[in-house]
This record gives sequence, structure tokens and C-alpha cells, in this order.
Amino acid sequence: MSIEKFVVIGAQAAGMTAASQAKRRSPQTIVTVFDAGQDVSVYSCGLPYYLGGVVGDLRELVVGTREAFIEKRKIDLRTGHEVLAIDAGNQRIRVRDRASDREHDEAYDRLCISTGAKANSPTAYFKDLSGVFNLRTMEGARKIHSFIENEKPRTAVIIGGGYIGLEVAENLSIRGISVSVIERMSSAMCQIGPEIGRMINRTLEVNGVKLYAESEAEALDGAGRVRCVHTGKHDLDADLVIVSMGITPNSALGLDAGLTPGAQGALYVNKDQTTSEKNIYAAGDCCDNMNLVTGKRDYVALGTIANKEGRVAGQNAVGGTEVFQGVVGTRIARVFGLEVGRTGLTLAEAREHGFDARAKSIKSYSRAKYFPGGGDIFIKIVYDAPSGRILGGQAAGIEGVKGRIDVFVAACTRRMTISEFSDLDLAYSPPFSPVWDPILVASNVAKRGR
Amino acid sequence: MSIEKFVVIGAQAAGMTAASQAKRRSPQTIVTVFDAGQDVSVYSCGLPYYLGGVVGDLRELVVGTREAFIEKRKIDLRTGHEVLAIDAGNQRIRVRDRASDREHDEAYDRLCISTGAKANSPTAYFKDLSGVFNLRTMEGARKIHSFIENEKPRTAVIIGGGYIGLEVAENLSIRGISVSVIERMSSAMCQIGPEIGRMINRTLEVNGVKLYAESEAEALDGAGRVRCVHTGKHDLDADLVIVSMGITPNSALGLDAGLTPGAQGALYVNKDQTTSEKNIYAAGDCCDNMNLVTGKRDYVALGTIANKEGRVAGQNAVGGTEVFQGVVGTRIARVFGLEVGRTGLTLAEAREHGFDARAKSIKSYSRAKYFPGGGDIFIKIVYDAPSGRILGGQAAGIEGVKGRIDVFVAACTRRMTISEFSDLDLAYSPPFSPVWDPILVASNVAKRGR
Repeated sequence: MSIEKFVVIGAQAAGMTAASQAKRRSPQTIVTVFDAGQDVSVYSCGLPYYLGGVVGDLRELVVGTREAFIEKRKIDLRTGHEVLAIDAGNQRIRVRDRASDREHDEAYDRLCISTGAKANSPTAYFKDLSGVFNLRTMEGARKIHSFIENEKPRTAVIIGGGYIGLEVAENLSIRGISVSVIERMSSAMCQIGPEIGRMINRTLEVNGVKLYAESEAEALDGAGRVRCVHTGKHDLDADLVIVSMGITPNSALGLDAGLTPGAQGALYVNKDQTTSEKNIYAAGDCCDNMNLVTGKRDYVALGTIANKEGRVAGQNAVGGTEVFQGVVGTRIARVFGLEVGRTGLTLAEAREHGFDARAKSIKSYSRAKYFPGGGDIFIKIVYDAPSGRILGGQAAGIEGVKGRIDVFVAACTRRMTISEFSDLDLAYSPPFSPVWDPILVASNVAKRGR
Repeated sequence: MSIEKFVVIGAQAAGMTAASQAKRRSPQTIVTVFDAGQDVSVYSCGLPYYLGGVVGDLRELVVGTREAFIEKRKIDLRTGHEVLAIDAGNQRIRVRDRASDREHDEAYDRLCISTGAKANSPTAYFKDLSGVFNLRTMEGARKIHSFIENEKPRTAVIIGGGYIGLEVAENLSIRGISVSVIERMSSAMCQIGPEIGRMINRTLEVNGVKLYAESEAEALDGAGRVRCVHTGKHDLDADLVIVSMGITPNSALGLDAGLTPGAQGALYVNKDQTTSEKNIYAAGDCCDNMNLVTGKRDYVALGTIANKEGRVAGQNAVGGTEVFQGVVGTRIARVFGLEVGRTGLTLAEAREHGFDARAKSIKSYSRAKYFPGGGDIFIKIVYDAPSGRILGGQAAGIEGVKGRIDVFVAACTRRMTISEFSDLDLAYSPPFSPVWDPILVASNVAKRGR
């Protein structure tokens, strides 16, 4: 059975991947993509680095141009078109052309919802005052960038000390702006575990970024332009405010059409990326995931996952039989030269999920101790005490964090035990690792602790 | 049952690890270690870097001093004692004290053979001429180092373009010596696959090291001191010659005692590191390994493996129940800034072992393309075509090779398929990887190719 028409809602990572994969697999299928905005398929993880000038030109963050998708890949790409509603029963959607303000119905054989997520933005922060921004889209990055160029802010407050918040903090610092970060929890990036959280706090301090932990932005103040953020305890000078308080899935379109909700208000999807309607797929930040460690639904919104899901949705929409197994909860970031990463569950998360979990932490070295250029590396291993199964890993250091986290990713995915892990024949040579790789040291310590 | 006396032959990585582990687990056991030489427990992988001054002092390469092992760990360490024979039936060994030239018998309840390996050294190369060396021990490193200091060689020839040979080549180059490498195969480090072999050849050339591939050192020439190496095709100036032609296990002591031989003349060992005699263990470069990819005996002599095996032997000798599952054939090296690594099987090896193997190669980037500081990375994935099982991986680039190889290590160990591999939730952020990690790109290409 050949699919005549595949319609995709949303032209970012998941949507454009789905469209491209479908067209590649089934060139005769008409593939139409609607997006309310104008920017197509952006590497949005690069946006913070544009603010600091690490990325010099926003065009470097464009995965593929509008023209390339249309002319080379033969995708019917319609930007400036907002999808208003999905009629699942009749297999059609209602679309408004923003330029002409005209509406029309568009039929589909298969539909993919890839509407992404939106920044959490308390409206109180944004009313009346200029100089207050989110950083979620290319448009947001352009606005902040031109604000910095034109207004030359000397002080900035970042509301929210998560990954994006800290990347923005670092990039504004690079530009000579004095940066404060307001974080509700006791440390920045608390998801990465308490020990690494404290290392991040120290790293921020050393690099001149002031962290206001266990604080909330209660009010913004100024006259026309923002000038101050009040936390209740402190009044922070702010010529510029970036609100970075996490995201919420854009799932309303799907939910209004009667699709089943999944974790955290995102759309529920099966392994083949179908929603509760067999002709409607979802991919990317608007849908939920299977967490392979807990076996429960989860919501992890990241570019890598959006790409994997878009690939599976696009293939399957035109007859493929691909599956996406799920996620293990991996995160990595670099904060002023400190690499921090995690995967699987932290000790606290593992216990919340009912595991009889234990954890061991070790400090080792990124290279052979005698080899120049290395540095300390911290590893924490979380495991199920009765079975020895590895439930998670965390790492921090000046180098070598990604590789070590990625081995934990494989271990969590394949449910390795600490004994199996200790035997891994990991690559060793003095420029790369001590003779006992730090993750093997951690697992040996865990074995002794059982 | 408590073990009264555990005797270890050989005081390097495997032996000292076995002794330390046994003493830690069973403090009342008398643990005696005999070694013919004087240097105890050396990080021998660091020796090439001492020649180039990257490691400034040989003492940095000592894992633990003689005094620390004796006083802190209460190990009865007897250097300068050569073990002449093992009498397995009567559980005793014949030992000669080199200082006094006296011999005596020493009884044991458990014995561990960790006699290591010796450099392959055609005797013709070493007769009559000074300036010709092996680099296998601290003593060898001292001799080469003082030769360089005193004789100021301007030219050097390395016979053998394997890992050690190239590390030595790089380190002699750092000192301003003009270096040539003679290699029998068509590329240096041929074990790492033909494509990466060619990259290494180019890297050597760019860095001023002359590689004479498909060549053999037929004769050495000079008067008292070496001056020239003849390959048949070329006469190479050589004020210094390093012979780096691989190693052979020191297994004669065990084989003479009737122990069963394993792969490549090494001692056969079971998973618990016992030899064919249940009271005699072996660990390190003198014994063979199980290759987890082929399921056959193999001989891989590396410091990491010696440490793991020594750990298991030492624990088990005093009542433990540890196992060492085996190896997957991992190697990594850095050659003038080019990182190269492999694990599992190359395509040629996989076919030799009877697999219906295929391979796909891709070139990607170590970081997000727009993020500064990254570089090209080459990935080759080898898989079993009928099942999709991953059989091996190879990588080369300016950074990020170890981490990617280590994920292949986990995949080869746990027999992941390319489909499972493609789903891995690997760590992503622009400083660390493109949104599709290079190893996922390779596995997606392999999936399409099936």
C-alpha cells in the first residue's frame, strides 16, 4: 500500500527529519510540512553560543535551508501556516495562511505532529518591561543579540539555573556582562546530582557568575526597560533578563483532537511513534518517551531524541517498521570548562522509583596521572543493591566526561550489572585514561560495597 | 578454609595486583612475591613518554614503591630472586637469590604466575653493535634515555610500526631526532584497519617521520656503534635503533611444569584465572584470554587486562569467587595528535573467523559542526549481516575517539545489534558531539545497507 499524502505539523528537528525520511523512502508520496513560523530546522542547542559570539552567524545553525528542502528533497514546505485543528475522524487538518489570513482544510493519509515545546514564561515577567526574553527560537536569539548590540547591558539576570540558563550565563559573561543566576533549588543543574551541583556552584563563583540558590524571582522592576529583579532576599541589577524556566510540550493541538496524553502533558506515543490514533504519529518535544531504566513513561525533550523519533515516524508513516525503544535520561553540558553529565537515575530518583538503590562516588583522573594535560574526574555510580544492576551514572571533570557517560548509557540500556561493567575492555593508553578507567574504579568500589 | 601461603611470580602489574588483592582480602595469608629484577610494579605504558620528556622522571611511573608494598601492605616482596622451576605436584618452587647465587625451595598453597612477556628481539640485531635497544622495561628506558643524553643521536630507526614503535617515534621526534620507521605491512598499526592505517601513514609524513612500509630490517651496520639499517631497498642512517617487533609470553616456566598451553604459546586460563592446575593461577601477559566476540581463545597483552586478571587471581587464590569474562580486543593510541582506536574485529578478522560480515565507514565531526575546536572523525562499524550484531568498531580523529570506541566495547561485549545501537541515548551538547553522534550515523548507514 502506497501512502499518497503525508502531512507534518512543525518544521523543526523532528518534523523535518520525519518529512525527509518519508520522502527518501517513498519518493512518490506528497509530503507537506506546515509551520506557523519562518525559521526551518534550526540547531537550537547552538543558540546560547550565538549570544557569546562562539557561533558567529545564525546561518551556521540552520540544518537545511527552505530552498534545499523544497528543491532538492521535494518537500512541500509551507512556512507561515498555522495549523488550527486536527479532525482525526475525517483525516484532515484546518490551516491558516498567516500572510493572507485565509483558512483551508488539508487532507492527509498519515499525519505527524511535531509541534515541539514552548518556554515556560510567567506572564508577570513579560508585561510592561523591555529587556526581558526567552531563548527558545532563532527569533528569540536574534532579539537578545540585537538588544545586547544596541543597549549594551552591563548586568544580566538569568531566571533558572538549568542547562540552558547556565549556557546563556557563560555566553553573556564572555561578552563582559555581569551575570547573576536565580535558582530555586540548592544548586544549579540539580538534576545532575548534589555533588556535581556543588561543583557547578563553585565553577560559577570562580568565573564571576553570582548564583542565588534557593531563590525565586518575585518581581521585575524598571521604567520601560527592566532594571532590577527582586528575589525577596536580594534586589539584583538587571539591564537584561533571560527567563529559562524549562519547557512545556506543545501538545494542545493533539490533545484537542482526542489523542491520549502521556507523561507531563505530552502526547502518548507507541514504540513506532504512533499516537493513540494509528494514522497520526508524533515526534520530538511534543510527545513523551519510554524510560528504559524505570520502565515508565517519561518526558525528555532533547534534539537527539527528536531526531531519532522523527526518523522512525517518517519511515513508518510511509510503510516502514522501525521502532524507537526509548530513553535513559542522558544529559551533558559544559560550564566554563567543567564538563558535567548524567544518565539513568540519580540515587534520589532511583529510590523514588522504588529501587533498593545504592551509590558510590570516586574521584580519579582523566588520563594516566603522570601524563600532562589531564585533571580530576568525579564519577558516581548508582545501582540496584539486590541485583547489582546499574541504574545510573554521573560524571564531572575537565575532559573525558561524554565518553564515560556514554558507556553508562549502554550499561543502563542493556541492564548490565556492576560485575559485568567492571570487566569491560575499555580503551586504555596514557593520554586517554588511567590503567583502571575511572568508571571501572567506581564499579569496583560498588562491587566491594555490596 | 584459610590459605596460609600465596606465592606470586613476577612483581609487575598483574603480580602486584594479585598480591595486594589477596592480602587485602585475607590479611593472615603470607603473600610472597618473587621477581628476578629490581623494578617493581611499573606503569610500562608510560615508558615511551619518558624518552620524549613528556614524563620527566621515571619515578612517576612507579605504581607503588618497594617499601610501600612491604611496610604498608605487608607483602613479602623479594626482588632479585629468580624462579627456576615449579613443582606443581609437590606445591613448591625453586628460587635463586641473584645476589648470593643461593637456591632454595619455597612451598605454596596457591601460586600465581605473572611472568609477563618479553620483547621479540632477533639476536642478529643486537650483536656487536651498541645503540640498539628494546623498550619493554624501566631498565630499557633508562639505557635509551642515557644513550640519548650522552651520545646525542641525530637519526633513529624504529624497527616495527606498531603502537609502541610509533609512540617511541613521536617521542624521539619531540627531542629533535630524525626518525624512520620500518614496517613489514603496508601501513603502520595495521591491526587498526586499512583506512586508519593510511591516515596514520599521512600523519607520520606530515610530522617528519619517514615510514618505510612493506620493508624489513635485513641488517644493521656500523663500527662498534650502529650507523645504518639496511632494508634491502634502502640504507637508513641510524645513530640509534629501537627494536619494537611485538612480544612473546613468558610462559616457559608454567609450560615446563606441565600446565596446558593456550593461545599463541601463553598459559591457558579459566574464567577464575586458574590454569590447568587448580592451585596455580596465571594473570597478565603470560596467559591467554577469552575473546568475547569470537568465543575463541586469544592473546591480548595489555596493562588494563593484566590488572583485571591480577585482581581476580588474587581474590580467588584466598577464597574469592571472582571471574574475568574476557576481552574484546580494544586498542587506542595517539599519534602526533591523531587519536586512533579499535575494538572487536576488523572486517578482515571477522571474515577470517567465519562471520558473514559487512562494514560501513562514515566521516563525521567530533562536535557540532558550528562549534569551534572540533575536527573530522572517521568511524567504521563492522557487523554480522544476517543478525545485525555488531562485531567491531574503529575510529580516528583529533578528539573524542576513546569515548566512541568504549561504546563499541559495551556493544561488542553485550552483543548489541545495529538497531539497538542506533537507539542509544548518547550524551549530546554542541561542545561534545553533533546531534547525531558519529557512531549513531555509522550505525544508521549500516542499517540502511542491510
